[in-house]
Amino acid sequence: MKDRSSPTPIVCTVDVVLLTLRESVLQVLLLRREQAPFEGAWALPGGFVHADEDADTEASAARVLQSKVGIASPYLEQLATFSGLARDPRGWSIAVTYCALVSHDALQAALAANIEGSVQSQSPSRARSHLQLFDVAALPQLPFDHARIVEAAVARVRGKSLYSSLPVFLCGPEFTLPQLQQTYEAVLGEAVNKVSFRRKMDELDMLEAVPGAVRGGAAHRPAQLYRLRPEYRRSLSLLARGL
Amino acid sequence: MKDRSSPTPIVCTVDVVLLTLRESVLQVLLLRREQAPFEGAWALPGGFVHADEDADTEASAARVLQSKVGIASPYLEQLATFSGLARDPRGWSIAVTYCALVSHDALQAALAANIEGSVQSQSPSRARSHLQLFDVAALPQLPFDHARIVEAAVARVRGKSLYSSLPVFLCGPEFTLPQLQQTYEAVLGEAVNKVSFRRKMDELDMLEAVPGAVRGGAAHRPAQLYRLRPEYRRSLSLLARGL
Repeated sequence: MKDRSSPTPIVCTVDVVLLTLRESVLQVLLLRREQAPFEGAWALPGGFVHADEDADTEASAARVLQSKVGIASPYLEQLATFSGLARDPRGWSIAVTYCALVSHDALQAALAANIEGSVQSQSPSRARSHLQLFDVAALPQLPFDHARIVEAAVARVRGKSLYSSLPVFLCGPEFTLPQLQQTYEAVLGEAVNKVSFRRKMDELDMLEAVPGAVRGGAAHRPAQLYRLRPEYRRSLSLLARGL
Repeated sequence: MKDRSSPTPIVCTVDVVLLTLRESVLQVLLLRREQAPFEGAWALPGGFVHADEDADTEASAARVLQSKVGIASPYLEQLATFSGLARDPRGWSIAVTYCALVSHDALQAALAANIEGSVQSQSPSRARSHLQLFDVAALPQLPFDHARIVEAAVARVRGKSLYSSLPVFLCGPEFTLPQLQQTYEAVLGEAVNKVSFRRKMDELDMLEAVPGAVRGGAAHRPAQLYRLRPEYRRSLSLLARGL
């Protein structure tokens, strides 16, 4: 059989599952669609691949996050590609999907700046309502196959958190070890033994103490603040055997 | 920013990394390209997505395997998507890649039938030489980014074999437990403790004894033959904690 280009055009998009932790609950950022198809529905931030400006689909995903959410995610991982005739009413499509993890503080700051920008452009009501966090276990009805995509992202993040530094990207830039353990526990949905957790963090060898920085008030012994070592600020450290 | 279709057309392809074990060495099937670009080079079997006939890109991959190799892989897993302007001289491209695992016997039978078909169509020299297995650690120079794609496939298979039934797809339909252990060891590249291996296979709960079937000659105690339970013949059984 000879190769040939398909006579039917293919719609090429990226979609981003941006996850964060709010009060120890895993949440996903959804955007209210402003145009057809599914105008007015909550959906994943996404858009067409722009072959004339994007270096690759990861660059497309970063551009979508920057233009629609106003954030540069420190961690962006390709999730999977969803395709076919059925998933998008515009036609046979390929959606390369990505998972982004950000701290709740960083997301709040980006959303506030986003609203500020929209207020200046005189569409404050749109700005306040068009991006919203939803508990991953209580999503509204999502268009396309976005429910499956969110499900795949949550499964990937939970699975990978067992044997990597992934949950650190849900913390702020500086955190105590108890805060980091709480983050792992929130993602995994189960308690983790403190001694074994500390040993695994040593094995991951991803943290450095912030010189002279401690956190903690009158009721608590001050705790040392840590941050990611530079080589792990955009990539993962992995465990040979899981938590 | 408004969504828009890209004015630059995007080349949409699938590529398949078909892996097998030959004499306990992990090997990949390459195909000699018959047309430009890179005519005459060894490359992964692949082809354009046919939006007019494929249900999704997994169907494209299955069609490519059937038409170019003559095999229906029992296990086909999406690997990752490679994209951008640089990887294909035909232009900005998206390659959705898949990993297929087959037993060496099944592959040999398919290749023999493939040669038989080509002999009947009077191109025997082409048939004998256009598909070939290569040790994954000793590949020829590969075009596009196919070397990176093979590397990603091997890493995925090794990683996943630690905590799943994946290596079984490299065995024939029936095998003894020592043969299965050898298969895991060949993929992982390390010896596995027999007692712990047997316990993990019990935990995977993926095998059933073939009634009345044993294998083994004069020098060996006859060993029971096993096969995959029907529910795991196209999907994986997973361990909570790895081997």
